[in-house]
Amino acid sequence: MSVTAARGFEASGVSAGIRPSGKPDVALVRSREPAVGAAMWTQNRVQAAPVTVSRAHLEVAQPQAVVVNAGVANAATGAAGEEDARATAVAVAGHLGLRPEEVVVLSTGVIGPRLPMDSLLTGVASAAAALSSDGGDVASHAILTTDAGPKTAVASGDGFTVGGMAKGAGMIHPRLATMLAVVTTDYPLEPGEAAGLLGPAVSESFNRISVDGDCSTNDAVVFLANGASGVGRDARPDERLAEALHEVCRDLARQIVADGEGATVVLEIDVAGAASDEEARAIALRVATSPLVKTAAFGRDPNWGRVLAAAGSAPWNGGFAQLDPERLRVSFDGTDVFSDGAPTGAVPALGGPACRIELALGLGSGTAGYLASDLSTDYVRLNAEYTT
Amino acid sequence: MSVTAARGFEASGVSAGIRPSGKPDVALVRSREPAVGAAMWTQNRVQAAPVTVSRAHLEVAQPQAVVVNAGVANAATGAAGEEDARATAVAVAGHLGLRPEEVVVLSTGVIGPRLPMDSLLTGVASAAAALSSDGGDVASHAILTTDAGPKTAVASGDGFTVGGMAKGAGMIHPRLATMLAVVTTDYPLEPGEAAGLLGPAVSESFNRISVDGDCSTNDAVVFLANGASGVGRDARPDERLAEALHEVCRDLARQIVADGEGATVVLEIDVAGAASDEEARAIALRVATSPLVKTAAFGRDPNWGRVLAAAGSAPWNGGFAQLDPERLRVSFDGTDVFSDGAPTGAVPALGGPACRIELALGLGSGTAGYLASDLSTDYVRLNAEYTT
Repeated sequence: MSVTAARGFEASGVSAGIRPSGKPDVALVRSREPAVGAAMWTQNRVQAAPVTVSRAHLEVAQPQAVVVNAGVANAATGAAGEEDARATAVAVAGHLGLRPEEVVVLSTGVIGPRLPMDSLLTGVASAAAALSSDGGDVASHAILTTDAGPKTAVASGDGFTVGGMAKGAGMIHPRLATMLAVVTTDYPLEPGEAAGLLGPAVSESFNRISVDGDCSTNDAVVFLANGASGVGRDARPDERLAEALHEVCRDLARQIVADGEGATVVLEIDVAGAASDEEARAIALRVATSPLVKTAAFGRDPNWGRVLAAAGSAPWNGGFAQLDPERLRVSFDGTDVFSDGAPTGAVPALGGPACRIELALGLGSGTAGYLASDLSTDYVRLNAEYTT
Repeated sequence: MSVTAARGFEASGVSAGIRPSGKPDVALVRSREPAVGAAMWTQNRVQAAPVTVSRAHLEVAQPQAVVVNAGVANAATGAAGEEDARATAVAVAGHLGLRPEEVVVLSTGVIGPRLPMDSLLTGVASAAAALSSDGGDVASHAILTTDAGPKTAVASGDGFTVGGMAKGAGMIHPRLATMLAVVTTDYPLEPGEAAGLLGPAVSESFNRISVDGDCSTNDAVVFLANGASGVGRDARPDERLAEALHEVCRDLARQIVADGEGATVVLEIDVAGAASDEEARAIALRVATSPLVKTAAFGRDPNWGRVLAAAGSAPWNGGFAQLDPERLRVSFDGTDVFSDGAPTGAVPALGGPACRIELALGLGSGTAGYLASDLSTDYVRLNAEYTT
């Protein structure tokens, strides 16, 4: 049910002819009751027009609807692209009786081309007419690009629900216009509270798969809360809401990794005992993005030598993050392969859909985790064949 | 002629049975006249035993000989590995009438296993017996691992010569125990001068291909100067020596990239107009290591969108390097594909063994260049099949 699992939300998805395949490519989500919301945006220096426009909208209004198109990213399109994004918001607002500033516009697809506005606006009209409280699933299909399938997640607390949908991306770091997620809840929040909840949830989920420290021109996570559950507020349900939000974000993030282009295994990189959380994160990121570690994973090779070489060269503060091989312990799926400065001689058999690589540094209390896909021949094939 | 192109040097290469293939795997280089020298070492937090031992040697003596073994990296081998490296230096010194501290020991190959010392020391004896002023070429074969072929370069000035050999690595960033180079000259240098010359030459050559900002556990560049040319010193030949050294290093570095595993094209990434040289370098590195840019190159796709997305997310100072898409100009092989905040519409045909990607940022005077290979299906295949 994705974005319509929570009460008081409607969604829809239609084919507007933007994707050459004719697959659904316009999704709409709206709250039937006044909602509050927040969004997290790409930090890339090159930002797509819908990011610029929607960020400005959120500065002056609470979001009540989200429109997403797939196929064209509306990125690197200059002032004309921003006009297109604004016109899309105006059209959605007109259909739904909202102010344009209450509409968040998201795009994903190829960088460079202008949006086919005639097709898009026709699609927006159809999507508005098709809005339904059962529309979450069809909406989750209409935001996809190279994804193998839709990504949805739901978690609930005592009387309230959090639900979401996401579209993934290349490997697990941005492909073209990459990672989008829309998460809704019927839990009651005050204006301003949504951002405080969304930040930590994203940082522990989507930001732990945005491998390469990278983010595309269009990455966005949008969160809406409309209070339609009618639950009361106090400390305990607030905590459970935060948990449910984390759960949905982590679930969606993991689905993005598992559906990475050409992915055959999910790598769970866990670093503990680093000098600081930040250094742990630098090391986890370095291992998670190492082509050598990732190709070894594709070959199901517990290649701790490559893990060591990557971990020892994690960029940090103009140098490398602290690591002492004499104190380091590395394990694959729970089997130690390196400790006390030397290999243990164990050669764990790797198999199954996931592989956990743990590094215990023995230096401090810094920890971090990353999810990564492997690097397969299919990944290269897909990305070499996909053209601008 | 590689390391024996300059006068007063001898070299050899023999098969000691360390590489399972039976190919030559022990190389020896020595100066027949008292030499001065310097070396640059990997910055990885995990350093191989020969790096630790040889660095200590260089602190107390001028290097007169370099011994290299391929097949086993002697990395992550603890105190026992350091003993092995020291024993190798002692053996070489014994054969050549040197002090052990005058011997530089280098290893490349698989991380983890101990060196087969019996085979190695037998090989060292044969190599010492085989030393010859024609031995540069055979030596250049005996340092290889996964390289398709030897890498040698020679440049000369008025009466003197600089020559070198290198072994490459995976793609162009470290594979296992990666990049080794030995460069010799018969130019006369004083003790201490070699280091001052080597640093800038490495930083403009090998450090501009050490893609991923990465360095393996064993990377090393060693430089010996013995004055056997008999040329006199003054400002002009000194300058020409520096040029020749740069030339040899750049030539070897480019050969390493071109021979990258599975490489089908050399990408020349040039960044100009950045806010600073350091930011230019961060951007060039980010583009040079982007799997999306590299797979597009394999597909001969002038995918400027991926270049833009990578350049806009170059890690710098805890954030991203400065870049303003409105001022950015991107070209492929001299054809502008993006300028004034929008695509130009040009679609350059890519072909040939090299592709130049230029980014003009219009922000300042910072420049940087990187060489990278593409990311091919063969790269993945090779690295997935190579096991620890």
